[in-house]
Amino acid sequence: MIEQGDRVLLVGQGREFFVKAGPGTLGTDKGQLDLSTIVGKAGGDTLTTHNGSQFIIRVPRPTDFFTYGKRSGAPMLPKDIGLVIAYTGMNHNDDVLDAGTGSGIAAIYFGGVAKTVRTYEVRPEFSALAMKNITEAKLDNVEAVSKDFLESEGTYDVVHLDLQIQAEHMTHAFSLLKTGGYLACYTPFLEQMAIVVDAATPLFCEVHTHELIEREMTRSKRGTRPSTSVCHSGYITIARK
Amino acid sequence: MIEQGDRVLLVGQGREFFVKAGPGTLGTDKGQLDLSTIVGKAGGDTLTTHNGSQFIIRVPRPTDFFTYGKRSGAPMLPKDIGLVIAYTGMNHNDDVLDAGTGSGIAAIYFGGVAKTVRTYEVRPEFSALAMKNITEAKLDNVEAVSKDFLESEGTYDVVHLDLQIQAEHMTHAFSLLKTGGYLACYTPFLEQMAIVVDAATPLFCEVHTHELIEREMTRSKRGTRPSTSVCHSGYITIARK
Amino acid sequence: MIEQGDRVLLVGQGREFFVKAGPGTLGTDKGQLDLSTIVGKAGGDTLTTHNGSQFIIRVPRPTDFFTYGKRSGAPMLPKDIGLVIAYTGMNHNDDVLDAGTGSGIAAIYFGGVAKTVRTYEVRPEFSALAMKNITEAKLDNVEAVSKDFLESEGTYDVVHLDLQIQAEHMTHAFSLLKTGGYLACYTPFLEQMAIVVDAATPLFCEVHTHELIEREMTRSKRGTRPSTSVCHSGYITIARK
Amino acid sequence: MIEQGDRVLLVGQGREFFVKAGPGTLGTDKGQLDLSTIVGKAGGDTLTTHNGSQFIIRVPRPTDFFTYGKRSGAPMLPKDIGLVIAYTGMNHNDDVLDAGTGSGIAAIYFGGVAKTVRTYEVRPEFSALAMKNITEAKLDNVEAVSKDFLESEGTYDVVHLDLQIQAEHMTHAFSLLKTGGYLACYTPFLEQMAIVVDAATPLFCEVHTHELIEREMTRSKRGTRPSTSVCHSGYITIARK
Repeated sequence: MIEQGDRVLLVGQGREFFVKAGPGTLGTDKGQLDLSTIVGKAGGDTLTTHNGSQFIIRVPRPTDFFTYGKRSGAPMLPKDIGLVIAYTGMNHNDDVLDAGTGSGIAAIYFGGVAKTVRTYEVRPEFSALAMKNITEAKLDNVEAVSKDFLESEGTYDVVHLDLQIQAEHMTHAFSLLKTGGYLACYTPFLEQMAIVVDAATPLFCEVHTHELIEREMTRSKRGTRPSTSVCHSGYITIARK
Repeated sequence: MIEQGDRVLLVGQGREFFVKAGPGTLGTDKGQLDLSTIVGKAGGDTLTTHNGSQFIIRVPRPTDFFTYGKRSGAPMLPKDIGLVIAYTGMNHNDDVLDAGTGSGIAAIYFGGVAKTVRTYEVRPEFSALAMKNITEAKLDNVEAVSKDFLESEGTYDVVHLDLQIQAEHMTHAFSLLKTGGYLACYTPFLEQMAIVVDAATPLFCEVHTHELIEREMTRSKRGTRPSTSVCHSGYITIARK
Repeated sequence: MIEQGDRVLLVGQGREFFVKAGPGTLGTDKGQLDLSTIVGKAGGDTLTTHNGSQFIIRVPRPTDFFTYGKRSGAPMLPKDIGLVIAYTGMNHNDDVLDAGTGSGIAAIYFGGVAKTVRTYEVRPEFSALAMKNITEAKLDNVEAVSKDFLESEGTYDVVHLDLQIQAEHMTHAFSLLKTGGYLACYTPFLEQMAIVVDAATPLFCEVHTHELIEREMTRSKRGTRPSTSVCHSGYITIARK
Repeated sequence: MIEQGDRVLLVGQGREFFVKAGPGTLGTDKGQLDLSTIVGKAGGDTLTTHNGSQFIIRVPRPTDFFTYGKRSGAPMLPKDIGLVIAYTGMNHNDDVLDAGTGSGIAAIYFGGVAKTVRTYEVRPEFSALAMKNITEAKLDNVEAVSKDFLESEGTYDVVHLDLQIQAEHMTHAFSLLKTGGYLACYTPFLEQMAIVVDAATPLFCEVHTHELIEREMTRSKRGTRPSTSVCHSGYITIARK
């Protein structure tokens, strides 16, 4: 049941609105929506504007927070987040440390998968914005910490780094991991990837760097072919303790 | 704490063994290991062979079941499983229907992420082998059903199909999904992808087909470059209700 | 020595102009250039504007006609033209038939390589525009014919097709080729590629379809990485008689 | 007309033989072939074994020298040779300098395109083997020089380098090129690519590095899909003077 303050999507009439349930009105070109009437409803229920247009209520998923979450910079792409989840085997038994919170998008995906997530971000204003996104995603197992990753403590199954990488980050990540646990490092540039591989190789027992080139296939009356859209983002190094 | 019958990995001496804790002995070229002594230990603890070689106990992760699980055919690759998890936003609130169980590898990954997974497989012997893998992965939220996908019922957040695809599968998947839920279809061939896109487009509100080309980067004394290894597996169509 | 009517490039001051040597003046923001003074000069010579800015004369290469040639549509990309040249082993002994002239860009590249090129284009206005480009490229071994490819006759070492493909085109191409000669078919869509492969396979002794994904590597102070620019154009099927 | 000593291909019975026309006999499982009878014939003519099996004579093309030429190491792949030809606009007016002859395969392709090719190779035994391949390809416009590239002199339209690259190679290449001419550098590793880009950028007016990922499409009864074969070879930097 949707509570006051919950984020929901209103979908209909070829439009999509990301709103908060509770006091207030949303003016659309299809009429006005009373947002307080969302409280108590459920995903799939319908909302009607003052002049009769209908919108379906959708409880947001992590993919919606990727689209609508507030951003402090360019977040990791879902394809790369998916690779981290799959190559670390992230699951509901895991304690995960995420560093370089950014807008918190990766932490939101990980929070939906892992037992707990602690996400470190050295810039307090980024950490605060991320915590807002995380709260709206209703994840009480994710904690945003505004500290340098090197100050982090504890024991983790997975450590995920998306920050200006330095060799000492590898040593620290190693010290935080359980035996059999995984480090995943996202690096947009080759030079950073080299730092990661060179520092991780002597410490970890398996080190592999992956690049994902993603293409969308398009299909029209003229035929089927790959689109010519953006297809790179970064390199992901996976190392196992 | 590891119980009798649990699968564990024994790692050491440049070797790795996937064994069951409990009565029995494992003969290795580094000496004999008494597997009953694993019971009661924990991940990270050490086991010693009769002549003093040490092995560390590792509690297996989904990645280990990809490597060591019994197979009835070629399973989906982790990169593609990761894409499905990320593009559907699969999370701990989700009821997932998986069809085309195969060896159960995708179901094991999904079971570590979602609230519940029901996985349909029309061939009983495949379903039974998959259930064995799932049980060894200690996932009590995953159920293997030996039935045709078209006989499935219920309401789901995510439907994942990896089977000999037919247009009617799209209609059935649509009927099983909640509003805002996702269908993910894995198809190795372009002709099957076309069937999926053509059948899904009139039903679903967003339909996108992705291809992931994965490359591993290699780094040696000679320099850094992409490896020339296998880089295709299939097309993944994601459709939202 | 540059003659009246020859196309040249004037390069300097961070600008590039594609002009005709002969009577006339080019007004630029760096001053006026008297184009008649180009006649009699050679590539590498300098031209000076009325107020003293200098431009270097460059005799155009096929790459310049790709950039500056008049276009009737989207031409094949150089990467794909290069693949056709390399995979057919096109060389100075070859008689080449090109069909689907378009703007004549592929014919200009081929004309610089082969002994003779005959290029067929069913639309007379396209053929005329292409012939203009070909003449400006000073290729007297290239002939533009405004006819349907199926009406072509003769014997060729290489047949190159970039047109709305039909199965009968393969049969006709086969009849035109010498033993050991090559057919190269460019098809933007997968459905067309399938037509080519299915019609060529029973006739030719080797049939292979290639896709080239090209990426540009970027290098800045931040680091080195692949750009995210356009990376697909079409499929090229190479078949040997 | 085929002369004594000429290389030809004999194709038939699902077999292919790369032989020299002239005295001698080739024993095959389909019978014996008298190689002296090839002299005076032409491509497309037929040769018959002592027991009646027929083979067609094929005059070899550059693609055949890629397959059958003697090798001193791994040559550049045709896709990369094609990219060099297309991105430099190499043509019948060009004087080309090639350095790092290797087996001479690139020089053979370039010799079929350009007016003249001089190919430098510091290892005399490599240069001698390459010259043998070049002679067999009947290219009298290609000269193999057994010297270090840095000792080369002259003026060229295109300089192509495929050797253990150093920054001073860029400066020397620049000094050899005509205005508007192109340097093309093939480098298998990223570190070498970085040396090329960093040394070429201040000298040349356009510098671009390309990577070609080539995939073959396969088509069988099961369907159409990209093969999972080798798909990388190196980086090609193109710089214009």
